[in-house]
Amino acid sequence: MKYLIFMVSVIVVNFCSAYNNDPSQKTKEKMISKSFTEYNDIERVEPSHWWVGFKNQTLQLLVKDENVYTADIEISYEGVTIESIVKGTSPNYLFVDLKISEQTKPGKFNIYFKFENGSRKIQTYELKSRIKASEDYIGFNSSDVIYLITPDRFANGDESNDIIAYLKEKKIDRKNDYARHGGDIKGITNHLDYINEMGFTAIWPCPLLTNDMPRASYHGYAMTDFYQVDPRFGTLEEYKELADKARIFNIKLVMDQVVNHCGSEHWWMKDLPFSDWVNQQKAFEENTELKNSSHRRTINQDSYASERDKKEMSEGWFVEAMPDLNQNNPFMATYLIQNSIWWIETLGLGGIRQDTYPYSDKTFLADWTGAIMTEYPNFSIVGEEWSYNPLIVGYWQQGMNNKDGYKSRLKSPMDFPMQRQIVDALKEDEQWDTGFVKMYEGLANDFYYASPKDLMIFPDNHDMSRIFTQLNKDITKTKMALGYIFTLTRIVQFYYGTEILMNDSAKPGDHGLIRTDFPGGWQGDKVNAFTGEGLTITQKDMQLFVKKLLNYRKDSKAIIEGETIHFAPENGIYVLFRIIEDEIVAVILNKNKKLVKLNLERFDELGLKGRNLKNIITSEKVVWNDYLTLKGEGVIILTTK
Amino acid sequence: MKYLIFMVSVIVVNFCSAYNNDPSQKTKEKMISKSFTEYNDIERVEPSHWWVGFKNQTLQLLVKDENVYTADIEISYEGVTIESIVKGTSPNYLFVDLKISEQTKPGKFNIYFKFENGSRKIQTYELKSRIKASEDYIGFNSSDVIYLITPDRFANGDESNDIIAYLKEKKIDRKNDYARHGGDIKGITNHLDYINEMGFTAIWPCPLLTNDMPRASYHGYAMTDFYQVDPRFGTLEEYKELADKARIFNIKLVMDQVVNHCGSEHWWMKDLPFSDWVNQQKAFEENTELKNSSHRRTINQDSYASERDKKEMSEGWFVEAMPDLNQNNPFMATYLIQNSIWWIETLGLGGIRQDTYPYSDKTFLADWTGAIMTEYPNFSIVGEEWSYNPLIVGYWQQGMNNKDGYKSRLKSPMDFPMQRQIVDALKEDEQWDTGFVKMYEGLANDFYYASPKDLMIFPDNHDMSRIFTQLNKDITKTKMALGYIFTLTRIVQFYYGTEILMNDSAKPGDHGLIRTDFPGGWQGDKVNAFTGEGLTITQKDMQLFVKKLLNYRKDSKAIIEGETIHFAPENGIYVLFRIIEDEIVAVILNKNKKLVKLNLERFDELGLKGRNLKNIITSEKVVWNDYLTLKGEGVIILTTK
Repeated sequence: MKYLIFMVSVIVVNFCSAYNNDPSQKTKEKMISKSFTEYNDIERVEPSHWWVGFKNQTLQLLVKDENVYTADIEISYEGVTIESIVKGTSPNYLFVDLKISEQTKPGKFNIYFKFENGSRKIQTYELKSRIKASEDYIGFNSSDVIYLITPDRFANGDESNDIIAYLKEKKIDRKNDYARHGGDIKGITNHLDYINEMGFTAIWPCPLLTNDMPRASYHGYAMTDFYQVDPRFGTLEEYKELADKARIFNIKLVMDQVVNHCGSEHWWMKDLPFSDWVNQQKAFEENTELKNSSHRRTINQDSYASERDKKEMSEGWFVEAMPDLNQNNPFMATYLIQNSIWWIETLGLGGIRQDTYPYSDKTFLADWTGAIMTEYPNFSIVGEEWSYNPLIVGYWQQGMNNKDGYKSRLKSPMDFPMQRQIVDALKEDEQWDTGFVKMYEGLANDFYYASPKDLMIFPDNHDMSRIFTQLNKDITKTKMALGYIFTLTRIVQFYYGTEILMNDSAKPGDHGLIRTDFPGGWQGDKVNAFTGEGLTITQKDMQLFVKKLLNYRKDSKAIIEGETIHFAPENGIYVLFRIIEDEIVAVILNKNKKLVKLNLERFDELGLKGRNLKNIITSEKVVWNDYLTLKGEGVIILTTK
Repeated sequence: MKYLIFMVSVIVVNFCSAYNNDPSQKTKEKMISKSFTEYNDIERVEPSHWWVGFKNQTLQLLVKDENVYTADIEISYEGVTIESIVKGTSPNYLFVDLKISEQTKPGKFNIYFKFENGSRKIQTYELKSRIKASEDYIGFNSSDVIYLITPDRFANGDESNDIIAYLKEKKIDRKNDYARHGGDIKGITNHLDYINEMGFTAIWPCPLLTNDMPRASYHGYAMTDFYQVDPRFGTLEEYKELADKARIFNIKLVMDQVVNHCGSEHWWMKDLPFSDWVNQQKAFEENTELKNSSHRRTINQDSYASERDKKEMSEGWFVEAMPDLNQNNPFMATYLIQNSIWWIETLGLGGIRQDTYPYSDKTFLADWTGAIMTEYPNFSIVGEEWSYNPLIVGYWQQGMNNKDGYKSRLKSPMDFPMQRQIVDALKEDEQWDTGFVKMYEGLANDFYYASPKDLMIFPDNHDMSRIFTQLNKDITKTKMALGYIFTLTRIVQFYYGTEILMNDSAKPGDHGLIRTDFPGGWQGDKVNAFTGEGLTITQKDMQLFVKKLLNYRKDSKAIIEGETIHFAPENGIYVLFRIIEDEIVAVILNKNKKLVKLNLERFDELGLKGRNLKNIITSEKVVWNDYLTLKGEGVIILTTK
């Protein structure tokens, strides 16, 4: 509401639109440019360029330049009109709303700035043509297994960018878990063949944008520029190259974005456009004690939440180094939405992962997801809501009929509840209400979700202990977890290195240790997990287990889109089937250490009697008759295909 | 579907309906009765009588008599027609569908039976007039606190019925936790004044119908006759007297019913009407191993549940002594629905509590609740789903928009999830994710329920440890639990004796011990909790605490129908408000053992600044200014009223 005040003071300079038969644009352009014989570039215009042909025909430019608030602005380009100009509360910002009509042709044009003091500046601006149709941006889905990578820790493809002199953190120290290790975009690109051969169909590198922070910049979540690739990770061209090469492998590129906060060293923190550009801005400027978020995320759903709690949660800073962006400021909201679209279009993304999802204003989240999904109807967004409560997780999913009327456009909440149930189930002894029943009843909760197959499940991720550590370094149980996860009706996310049993057991939960260097990613590494050189037998065995399963999964209609039938755990055995037409996949999880004969009569409704099945891992043939002999604890995955 | 076969063999004897101007009913009656000069009564007709004026104009009589399947049946009564007669698979049953037209007058009539062997019998049947309008059966709601009583253990009002010679269990042994102790209906009736003075507004006695079982018949859940009051508890007249006297106190009577199973000594178990009258009937008759329910109740929601698991859960026997009734047999379904309506009408009930709710066929449950709620639109039913998962509990509530389309008519699921959260919250130390946050986030789940105020919360019940035991005999924490529960937006159920700290700490969870005799209920009891004689100071203190709170709650619009606002726990303090117009109730739960000053600025949005409040328990006056001094662990409940 308060922005109406600004709207009144707008300087509107309306040139003829494309529909206007006035003297040609060329003539106008000449008339204006005549008076701009000497000029400098504007300090910053964002987005740096845009495209023609979006459904949304408006574009809002953030213009930053000293005292730009006094400037008159003119544009002459067929199909482009200035709709409004709004001043920031800082004199150095203007927000310029352009209308780009449907007929607008791609091309470059000048934006002319006449300052009150007489100085004149020109900014060249480009409207590009789009490379592919909106519908062709296909997001990740249940056919995908996404390889999550901490880029600093995966592979160092270019040592020349390890240290960048003009950035604050300029040390490489592979012995320090919280320092930069030198991994980069090139390192990922170099190993797409490995990723592909393993059977992963998408990659999600943690943020690659500039984090010019003095410490712990390696993780990427404290962005100091939303439009710049961190030079230590590479260049925009290299990011594009990653996207292009991944496309050749049919690997979708998922970008890790953050709309909730930025890094405290973000360029705008020195001169904020509006007095409410970030939340708690006053505290920040006056250097008083900053109030962090309460992190009590249930305020988003809780109909009894106090206004005070809502504010504390949503407007508090994530941590002191991460100021909270105020998405209730419509210029901030637009900035973030355009930024996301800019990256989708620039990289031809196959999805966005949105960090700290519930910390942002929830109305904005609906707008942000809505704007993207409206523009790219087949796109996918996954949001991080770290809650073990399915009620909370499900609330955020698109298609959910929430009692409070909240309409989310988020396709894929992360399935933290099920991840936890799986780990608990495997760790616990088998009893009436412990052990497998946790997985069985956890999966039963799918009845509540708008779309279970669009939830993203994972054995672990960059913020939690590795699954091998969570399962007390039990290889058999790790295989059981992976076997189950890979065959569920879900999108799967898999953290790099878990396939070779990387773990943080030495210091469970330690972030630096969780994000260990992938062996073989650095020159001189004695172990090379890409080639298998130096891996232990158990590491190789797990890597092969993952590879075999994922390569089966890739083409398995039963797993990707089949029905699910499971049977309540009995006698330490839990059996789940995935079924489609001519393909049935049977997943048998068994905690009995001694040999047991599983009576198959219980599963008669599947119609498997007498059929030949194949063990996906060992390729052994099995006839489905009266009994199945289970030789010990583990997971057996059989297919009729 | 299979019942269609029987429908074909129906003997339909249609007399003129009330709309028919044929020779008068009197003449017809005379014509028929002439041939019935000698007759005996029929062995059993159920329901024994019925009423005119229901919305549902059909009535199905279960008729049991030797070889009754050969009998022709005739009725001549204006407005009553026989619509169909269906034979059971046992020769000794007939099911007679009557249509009772809207115009039918109350009165008695004869049902004439002509047997194939020439014998003739007459059954006199009565259609009564209804005492009050359907809308006037007002069920329990959020204004109610329901006193749950185990009748055998509350008070022995009539020693003459302690032992009934013709019933199987004929011993009284108050020293044996699983034997009968002699409590009865009269005992409850005698103490309605106590119940009323304590502030309870409804009573729910555990089942009072005949349980002619050889062992553990005291609990009442193994009924052997759905239409008979257990003589050891009293007579139907005494049950009616209880209802009538309760009504004088404005105390609603809630009946504990069981549609899922009966006792294995139920009269019909010796000669079952149909070959599928109970589930697993074949196993029962052949005396082979009976299959009990798997108790995996999530099959009701789980869209992945196997057919096998659904059958095992729903059709298995609850325990060996409780055969599972097959509500898929439409005659069984009708029998149970009519039985419920018979009791509502007979006792003028203020609600039904339905035992083991999710064990019955879920389509039947919708039909059963639907039939009752259609007949009595303001009635209330509470169902026992012992799940700690709100997803499962909420699924059963009327108004829930379930994804699978299931439409329940159950007003009040029991709130086991919140009960557990409260106990966990109070037992745990205060940390980021333990302690009060469990209550806070548990209550936040209300966003999911169709109607949170219609959930039934309870500190404990007859099947779980007493709250005092659950909270490790911590009196302060017990008060915190009760204070919170009594002020929540819920219907409250309270188990007799918890007000005097009855507990099972000597053998936690032991059913017999949980259901301890209420002191003062028996002649010669040295302690009398009704009068206070012999109670310890702490017992008296707790009794007074409950009494004060409940008597406040009775008239508190804020608690009964007000809004809720709560604040995330901070520093070991959790604060919740209930608000309506001119009444605000503040509930302050504090775990700090040392004196703390609570800064009230955080609660500014309540607008309490400068107002006078009163402590509901101590009547102390408090001015709501900058700080509130909390002198130690406990609950403080303040009101503006």
